Amino acid sequence: MMKLYFAKGTCALASHIALEEAGTEYSTVRIDFAAGEQQSPEYLAINPKGRVPTLVTDRGILTETPAMLAFIAQSFPKAKLAPLDDPFGFAQVQAFNSYLCSTVHVAHAHRMRGTRWADDPGAIEAMKRKVPQTVAACFDMIESRMFQGPWVMGETYTICDPYLFTIAQWLEGDSVDPSRFPKVKAHRDRMSEREAVRKAVAFEQG
Amino acid sequence: MMKLYFAKGTCALASHIALEEAGTEYSTVRIDFAAGEQQSPEYLAINPKGRVPTLVTDRGILTETPAMLAFIAQSFPKAKLAPLDDPFGFAQVQAFNSYLCSTVHVAHAHRMRGTRWADDPGAIEAMKRKVPQTVAACFDMIESRMFQGPWVMGETYTICDPYLFTIAQWLEGDSVDPSRFPKVKAHRDRMSEREAVRKAVAFEQG
Repeated sequence: MMKLYFAKGTCALASHIALEEAGTEYSTVRIDFAAGEQQSPEYLAINPKGRVPTLVTDRGILTETPAMLAFIAQSFPKAKLAPLDDPFGFAQVQAFNSYLCSTVHVAHAHRMRGTRWADDPGAIEAMKRKVPQTVAACFDMIESRMFQGPWVMGETYTICDPYLFTIAQWLEGDSVDPSRFPKVKAHRDRMSEREAVRKAVAFEQG
Repeated sequence: MMKLYFAKGTCALASHIALEEAGTEYSTVRIDFAAGEQQSPEYLAINPKGRVPTLVTDRGILTETPAMLAFIAQSFPKAKLAPLDDPFGFAQVQAFNSYLCSTVHVAHAHRMRGTRWADDPGAIEAMKRKVPQTVAACFDMIESRMFQGPWVMGETYTICDPYLFTIAQWLEGDSVDPSRFPKVKAHRDRMSEREAVRKAVAFEQG
């Protein structure tokens, strides 16, 4: 049985939803960022990066959302969470998720995690100021060039969907009006109605 | 036949090496960053992100290094560039490559591409100042916790190797002394002796 370490409001939600969609049994461990639990010796022994999510599997530990999502899809092929028999389709899924982790999540992180990249308080404030612009530019790219609809990859729901949903949760906090991106906003609403999403969100909020 | 758009000194080198390792015929198109070709209307029509690499395949266009590397591995299974029949092994490969794209490459990018995340010149200078520290912290994590040796994943060469090699090329430019990371440095030297690496590097430099 897989075990997911998560923290509320983080990208771990994407893997949490994917585990629900997979229809598998799994357990969870809540990490309290406010209490700094991600930097505790116990947690660093599991994930030396001091971040979430972490997925404990029968074979060992996995980190990094795109890798975990693909692993969940491959481990539960009956759930059809990725085009596993089509290398090009699978690569398109991976390219979308890679964009989310390396560009969109990074743009967002400059609001709360500026100390990763600069020490000067003025620089950290300057990063925060640009977040609404950089995050909006990412979502403009998704809305106009990447999102196919009704799901990210078109007619078929994939592991791109919980990941986009998760990151789109952060728009208001980043001072970006979701109504600027009607396809993304409708997708967020559509996702919110899925049983797996409702269950994972309710659990993390609780 | 696949076609790779690349620019000298960028992460496109990883896919270039992987295509060589795959033993396939491919073509290349050089994009001149100094001339701003990545922002030309012609290139933006191919890759609206205005970045490299881009891979043109029979099925369509792919972007994002981790997705392209996995696609090359899956398209040429005889080259054995990833553990394609082992979902957990494949996920470990993907987790490593995801760390490179979302954390290591991003840390490095704050030296030359600070305008992505702040407008204030002082903030951009503050980001530059922290790059030696953040990049070194990433390579410390790779050296001490992730690299198995003699290749990234242990005894078997994978798509992690050209990607690590590519990003390790940037250490000196980021004012990080490679001798602090003896395993990574030895890997860089070992990679430099491979025919595929020599060929791709010589072509990009030429």
